Amino acid sequence: MPTLRLALCQVNPTVGDLAGNAALVRAWARRAADAGAQLVAFPEMVLTGYPVEDLVFRRSFVAASRAALDRLAADLAADGLGELPVLVGYLDADGPPQVSGDAEPGRGARNAAALLHRGGIVATYFKHHLPNYGVFDEDRYFVPGRELTVVRVGGVDVALTICEDLWQAGGPFAAARQAGVGLVLNINGSPYELNKDDIRLPLVRRRAAEAGATIAYVNMIGGQDELVFEGDSMIVTADGELLTRAPQFVEHLLVHDVDLPPARESAGPDEALADDMRVVRAAVDAVPPPAGGPAATGGIIAPVADEAEVWQALVLGLRDYVDKNRFPSVVLGLSGGIDSAVVAALAVDALGPDRVVGVSLPSQHSSEHSREDAAELAKRTGLDYRVEPIQPMVDTFLANMSLSGVSVENLQARVRGVILMALSNQEGHLVLTTGNKSELAVGYSTLYGDSVGGFNPVKDVWKTLVWRLAKWRNADAARRGETPPIPENSIGKPPSAELSPGQLDSDTLPDYDVLDPILIGYVDGDLGRDGLVASGHDPAIVDRVLRMVDTAEYKRRQSAPGTKISMKAFGRDRRLPITNRWREDG
Amino acid sequence: MPTLRLALCQVNPTVGDLAGNAALVRAWARRAADAGAQLVAFPEMVLTGYPVEDLVFRRSFVAASRAALDRLAADLAADGLGELPVLVGYLDADGPPQVSGDAEPGRGARNAAALLHRGGIVATYFKHHLPNYGVFDEDRYFVPGRELTVVRVGGVDVALTICEDLWQAGGPFAAARQAGVGLVLNINGSPYELNKDDIRLPLVRRRAAEAGATIAYVNMIGGQDELVFEGDSMIVTADGELLTRAPQFVEHLLVHDVDLPPARESAGPDEALADDMRVVRAAVDAVPPPAGGPAATGGIIAPVADEAEVWQALVLGLRDYVDKNRFPSVVLGLSGGIDSAVVAALAVDALGPDRVVGVSLPSQHSSEHSREDAAELAKRTGLDYRVEPIQPMVDTFLANMSLSGVSVENLQARVRGVILMALSNQEGHLVLTTGNKSELAVGYSTLYGDSVGGFNPVKDVWKTLVWRLAKWRNADAARRGETPPIPENSIGKPPSAELSPGQLDSDTLPDYDVLDPILIGYVDGDLGRDGLVASGHDPAIVDRVLRMVDTAEYKRRQSAPGTKISMKAFGRDRRLPITNRWREDG
Repeated sequence: MPTLRLALCQVNPTVGDLAGNAALVRAWARRAADAGAQLVAFPEMVLTGYPVEDLVFRRSFVAASRAALDRLAADLAADGLGELPVLVGYLDADGPPQVSGDAEPGRGARNAAALLHRGGIVATYFKHHLPNYGVFDEDRYFVPGRELTVVRVGGVDVALTICEDLWQAGGPFAAARQAGVGLVLNINGSPYELNKDDIRLPLVRRRAAEAGATIAYVNMIGGQDELVFEGDSMIVTADGELLTRAPQFVEHLLVHDVDLPPARESAGPDEALADDMRVVRAAVDAVPPPAGGPAATGGIIAPVADEAEVWQALVLGLRDYVDKNRFPSVVLGLSGGIDSAVVAALAVDALGPDRVVGVSLPSQHSSEHSREDAAELAKRTGLDYRVEPIQPMVDTFLANMSLSGVSVENLQARVRGVILMALSNQEGHLVLTTGNKSELAVGYSTLYGDSVGGFNPVKDVWKTLVWRLAKWRNADAARRGETPPIPENSIGKPPSAELSPGQLDSDTLPDYDVLDPILIGYVDGDLGRDGLVASGHDPAIVDRVLRMVDTAEYKRRQSAPGTKISMKAFGRDRRLPITNRWREDG
Repeated sequence: MPTLRLALCQVNPTVGDLAGNAALVRAWARRAADAGAQLVAFPEMVLTGYPVEDLVFRRSFVAASRAALDRLAADLAADGLGELPVLVGYLDADGPPQVSGDAEPGRGARNAAALLHRGGIVATYFKHHLPNYGVFDEDRYFVPGRELTVVRVGGVDVALTICEDLWQAGGPFAAARQAGVGLVLNINGSPYELNKDDIRLPLVRRRAAEAGATIAYVNMIGGQDELVFEGDSMIVTADGELLTRAPQFVEHLLVHDVDLPPARESAGPDEALADDMRVVRAAVDAVPPPAGGPAATGGIIAPVADEAEVWQALVLGLRDYVDKNRFPSVVLGLSGGIDSAVVAALAVDALGPDRVVGVSLPSQHSSEHSREDAAELAKRTGLDYRVEPIQPMVDTFLANMSLSGVSVENLQARVRGVILMALSNQEGHLVLTTGNKSELAVGYSTLYGDSVGGFNPVKDVWKTLVWRLAKWRNADAARRGETPPIPENSIGKPPSAELSPGQLDSDTLPDYDVLDPILIGYVDGDLGRDGLVASGHDPAIVDRVLRMVDTAEYKRRQSAPGTKISMKAFGRDRRLPITNRWREDG
């Protein structure tokens, strides 16, 4: 039985940075070669970054991707790595035009993978199953491939697949079984979701059984705009044995010797396979394995606890948003409350205290303990701490306008927003927003006030999870003998916006222990009123919460729309990655 | 040859307002019956409104749509309209599950049409071609239908189709020819785009030829969030003759007697038609045509000039956004410049002067003519005019912070934003934003400053078109003997942000006559740098403009993102209509 030393390169590319991503591939291919690898795989669209969204529609970008691929193949050979077969994801466009209406002439873009060897491209594969749900819009961007590419490497038949191909039954994995392959490479840009790692391993096992082959799964890591990729690369045998598994949220080279069945002389049929696919075959000579050394094993990293996993995801998402967009530093308001304390702790973990500015913005309604808790947080974390009282500005507005009630509450939040944005303009910091998902859901925030900012690390974190994260982070620090970053008082005190005398969240909202389960059912679970009531929630509270969410839905959306008179209005239909290093002029 | 009196009801539904939309159908079916109609058609998804976006994922909403359809059929019969066949669009969900990955269990939602008759549903049709480009995401939401529904009405075979079915070759129209039908009903939710009416008629002619049948095309009108539907309903014969055409942007009942071929006794095949479709047949008795009266003719409305068309689209989009969201009134800042003047004129046309508040927000940099031009606009249009000087608030910020340069410019715009939002909170107005598409493209605006607001009527209007619209509106007023609303001085003077002494747009930007064609190529046309230079633009200016657009792209997007840790984070992946009247609790 042949043995192949596989190297899975769990790296962190950046959308649009073709030169940087190619350099990343060259550096990690070198590391893989040094480890004696015979076959190397990089993630989905590693060369362009993922997801490229509407960049697909720029012919110049597609052409740049293809040119970069050719150059990479040549550069790998020039680096002395030409004998090593290297699989990379990239953007191609040789497909037939997409059907997209007479009004919008189609394109034939492909989510593609190429096997590079001896300075050239020896095989390509086009993603077959295109995800078009949740964060994915691939039916909009790509034409599905209809061919399964099988490459004979070192006497083993290896099928090439991409991400979603693994998530749907039938298609390439069924075809791989029919074609009689011994190994399926699956390259991924699979975004992190809570508990997704618990789903992934059983899924890989199911597909390995379907294909009757070992699966080598490699996923990227890193933050890309709103998404975080987590890695969790692994190799699983046809009978479901987990051979090796990489850690989450860090770059990692996973090298493992895998025993694989020799290619059958008379392989399976090449036509009329599952999903009307057909097989295209190629072959490369493999470099011999290092003689005499020990077998390479990647080890198995056990997944971490939920809070640790979410914390790492949020730290990585924030760090990469700041660094890939080249912001020198961040600034945020510190209220003494739990949300801003957690965001500050995340920011310090992501960037270090020297790149985080925390501003206390007290008003006449700010309690003494709020100021003290903010100062205590600053002391514990070492961030750059400032105090900017807002009362003089608030008073000037009030002296010049006739405002009352909620207008005065919102005014205070907006003056804080103006101050943070002025600091951002003057000193170059990115403003962090700190509203949690529960607040966002019920609209318990001020439009253009506390919602001001360039990035919100906790926008998708329910309030009860914010508390759990704070407690976990403090306990983790204590376990390591470090100072817990978050003041106990910020965790323990009742939440308040402090925009009017004695105000508490509980004046307006149900307790978060009651609120969050309803919101989770309604927002995350798409349950209706009846479904929520059937789950045991109090009907009166359900009605109250649903009305708040429905109202907030358009309060939140009031910062965006206008009338479109073309297909290319700015706004949510123009989907461009923010962290995008690609420039027409290079 | 049989003659059928067709009634096409070009109405204005609201997303989520099932009860209101059903009432609309009943009222217009009554009008159609009074005009002697024998077959009535309403637009795509008229019962739910269109597009419903992520409401599709709420089972409770789908169930409500189906229940509303049954109730509507019964109500029409109770109204004495049971003998009249009425075609309405609605949301159904009896399809097989959508393939959407193991992670997201599928649904089988349908973009559907039902023919109502004698209190029941006699035929249904499910949209076959699903658009998934531009503003459309229908691959995400719907399962395509595979059956062509043919209903025999008054001796004529009538095929039912929906919107995109018309925009793609093959499929239902080719199947309709094979099935030997005499008439194809095509119901639409087709959004307005500049010059789309010039494309639509040739397209309908092409499909009429493909089907070998007359096409009756009915489209909705009205604003729905960012979209405007324009109507432009029409009937075109198999040989391309335009029989009747409705006006754009207004509700309209188009009634026309159409000579149609009798159904063949031996109709075409019912299996293995184009795109693997099969035919499902039904029949209804038609009411007889009114005896002895004159033939009904709908007339042919000629399309209007570009500026008139855009003006009407923007007025309708703004009016419906305000009214469907139930805002009592709007407020905007009046700088004396062209953008705010045009938006004010649009608002007065849309809502009347009593529902428009214009606020002059002068600073120490505001010129005398700016204040005069704003006051003159107010006088001409009759809107509610106020003056709120910003200098006291700006000075207080400057006294309490160390700001310089652009930070001070932005501060002024943000103080204006705070004032407008305070007026909005205090008095209930929706804030209108006035940045044109050229400014948005190059980032020539202040985040959380002049970009503050709930709706921007000119967000998709290039600056040079803003000027053309102003001139057209004034000339149109003069032609009708009315006061031109926009001061000539606002049209003629060089544009300036007036945030620093003597500042002009031309200090920072190329002339708009140079800038706009480059932006149109880059943004609307997806041209790359080389394509733009090949079109004759100065390479140095192209490079400068492209860098501004690429930078602005993420400046603009700094108000949104945060890290997602679930499929249902708030933000652009959660696609809910804003103007949504549907509530779980009724």
